[in-house]
Amino acid sequence: MIEQSLLEKLVEALRCMPGVGRKSAQRIAHYLLQRDRDGAKHLSLLMTDAMEKIGNCKRCRNFTENELCHICLDKKRDKSIICVVESPSDVDAIEEANFRGVYFVLLGHLSPLDGIGPDDIGLNQLETLLNDKELKEVILATNTTVEGEATAHFISEMVKKNGLEVTRIAHGVPMGGELEFVNSMTIVHALDDRKTI
Amino acid sequence: MIEQSLLEKLVEALRCMPGVGRKSAQRIAHYLLQRDRDGAKHLSLLMTDAMEKIGNCKRCRNFTENELCHICLDKKRDKSIICVVESPSDVDAIEEANFRGVYFVLLGHLSPLDGIGPDDIGLNQLETLLNDKELKEVILATNTTVEGEATAHFISEMVKKNGLEVTRIAHGVPMGGELEFVNSMTIVHALDDRKTI
Repeated sequence: MIEQSLLEKLVEALRCMPGVGRKSAQRIAHYLLQRDRDGAKHLSLLMTDAMEKIGNCKRCRNFTENELCHICLDKKRDKSIICVVESPSDVDAIEEANFRGVYFVLLGHLSPLDGIGPDDIGLNQLETLLNDKELKEVILATNTTVEGEATAHFISEMVKKNGLEVTRIAHGVPMGGELEFVNSMTIVHALDDRKTI
Repeated sequence: MIEQSLLEKLVEALRCMPGVGRKSAQRIAHYLLQRDRDGAKHLSLLMTDAMEKIGNCKRCRNFTENELCHICLDKKRDKSIICVVESPSDVDAIEEANFRGVYFVLLGHLSPLDGIGPDDIGLNQLETLLNDKELKEVILATNTTVEGEATAHFISEMVKKNGLEVTRIAHGVPMGGELEFVNSMTIVHALDDRKTI
């Protein structure tokens, strides 16, 4: 079956994307071949380019093709607040909420069982940032998983040693969420952190 | 935001794939950058290659990077039966059922309102195939949509003129399907085409 091979190879290669199984890969390959060859060529050029050029910001570890990302370079940003997140996609989520401080991206979380220690998530780099005299507060916005919470705890101890304020983002019932579909751990948090109105 | 641009461009470009919206595109881009840059580079090379080299088989119009596809070249195939389908993915589906005849791929269906006539779906090419003395039967396996049925009807008239047998694949309750979830049109077909056991 030499003739099928190129299409078959393309289908195999498409499976490197998350959530794309064999059937989806076939559908994507057929769709692009039948309807959008130019789009696919454009995509493959950009993909090579992005994979080769995009690295991590020297200061905050977010994705960028330059030495520093656009957020770190932005002079209007409030450099007195650093928000610590696990991944670059978390930065996008917080950006949408119009946060005006700067970030530090861990690119993971502490996971001793997998051999991921403080240096692997850049905490040595964060430590040097903590010496910045402009800095006043570190907001911990790691995920609410066991690893995320443990990582937040570890960083909070580190920040406190430097005499800086350290905060954790609030956990509670999501806006627009219906109470009956919210899990009990969230409700526990929502009750504990209730506010007088 | 010059710094974000390459990543942003990649996210935009990923949306050329079917079923990939902005959020999925972001997730794919971040995943590939964080975890599988080699896979992504391999994919982009193959994608360019496939988009440039894969064309349609001169005989059956299926995808191939050669003049004739591997099915048309296969000497063990039964050339007395042609199965007519709408798209190359339909060929894959029928291949999985171990069909041993050959195919003709319409790459679409008749749709006068969109200006898609017989020649656009290669019926002139199918006509010349009908003159092959080895050919005995044409199986119509177009989709069960209005357009697919109309196309099947049109082709059946064409084949009958050539004095060949023409058949339509059976419609009925799918294997493993639960009767209560099958739509009424399918039940009508299943009852009409009932067999003595």
